[in-house]
Amino acid sequence: MARWEGDPEGRLERAALALFDEQGYDRTTVAQIAQRANLTERSFYRWFSDKREVLFGGSHDLESHLLTAIDAVPVDTAPLPTLLAAFATAPEVFRPRDFLEKRAVVIAANPPLQERELIKLASISEGLTAALIRRGHDERTSRLSADVGMAILKLTTVRCMADETLDFAAALDVSAQDLLTIATTGTKTLGP
Amino acid sequence: MARWEGDPEGRLERAALALFDEQGYDRTTVAQIAQRANLTERSFYRWFSDKREVLFGGSHDLESHLLTAIDAVPVDTAPLPTLLAAFATAPEVFRPRDFLEKRAVVIAANPPLQERELIKLASISEGLTAALIRRGHDERTSRLSADVGMAILKLTTVRCMADETLDFAAALDVSAQDLLTIATTGTKTLGP
Repeated sequence: MARWEGDPEGRLERAALALFDEQGYDRTTVAQIAQRANLTERSFYRWFSDKREVLFGGSHDLESHLLTAIDAVPVDTAPLPTLLAAFATAPEVFRPRDFLEKRAVVIAANPPLQERELIKLASISEGLTAALIRRGHDERTSRLSADVGMAILKLTTVRCMADETLDFAAALDVSAQDLLTIATTGTKTLGP
Repeated sequence: MARWEGDPEGRLERAALALFDEQGYDRTTVAQIAQRANLTERSFYRWFSDKREVLFGGSHDLESHLLTAIDAVPVDTAPLPTLLAAFATAPEVFRPRDFLEKRAVVIAANPPLQERELIKLASISEGLTAALIRRGHDERTSRLSADVGMAILKLTTVRCMADETLDFAAALDVSAQDLLTIATTGTKTLGP
């Protein structure tokens, strides 16, 4: 059993996801989640600020993991390759596939969770932008690189969720090539 | 006076923005907004589903405008240049600069409005993805192009809000060049 699965955080996430799936997101209370995880409501709030947050522990882990991974990339690396190098290590903090699949279904069915998901993705993009700026890139380049990087990360995740035989780092390379194709096809003629 | 400024929709938007600015978003009611615009609460709900929506009439206008503009682009155009051609016409539906400046301040100060903004941007990206798919591009390319296009549009808007002497279409070209630089710098070595 991976550490996350036995930790209070992981137990609460799994309990919440099971309850959301069984009886719906709206009808599930924090007390029920805590009870299912054999923890107190008080411990729930030590990990998560509210019921919505319980499905986004992975987003926080991903954001801090990526920021650490960026620090390990040689400083003379260009912005997008810096992000791609960090993204390639993202599977180290991914929740198990069965959890992520069920989570995606629950999120798609609940607008409040979709909203929170968008906020988390925007937060990661902000974090990446700030990290690139700290590495000496200008703000404009950093922001565009972070947004484009997040689009690549999203596409890669969709790709890997749809086909479990795919290797994440290899799929990331394919997505980066897709970006190159999109960016170079026809756009050169738009320049000054 | 532009048509929007005299229309009920525009009057409600301006009244709401003025009230949010004067007394805060939380303390403003739909009834107050309608009264300030010399309209009934009932008319408010004919235009907007709730208090948050009143600042996003422009997002709806932008989305439908872009979808129409895409239809006017020759079908053999590559995905990203298709989006850029449509984006270049976006200023036709932009609200006046003074409105947009004040709106940005109010949104930045209110998390519920920031959430709604993210949802609107995601909705536009979904709309662009669907439009590209209808033009015969595959889903993967369409989604990545739409997300990257939105990053370019966002950057261009930030740029033009910061410097009112900039021409939107010219700033869009600069952002597209920035993308090309980001996509081509160092990423080629990541390919298979």
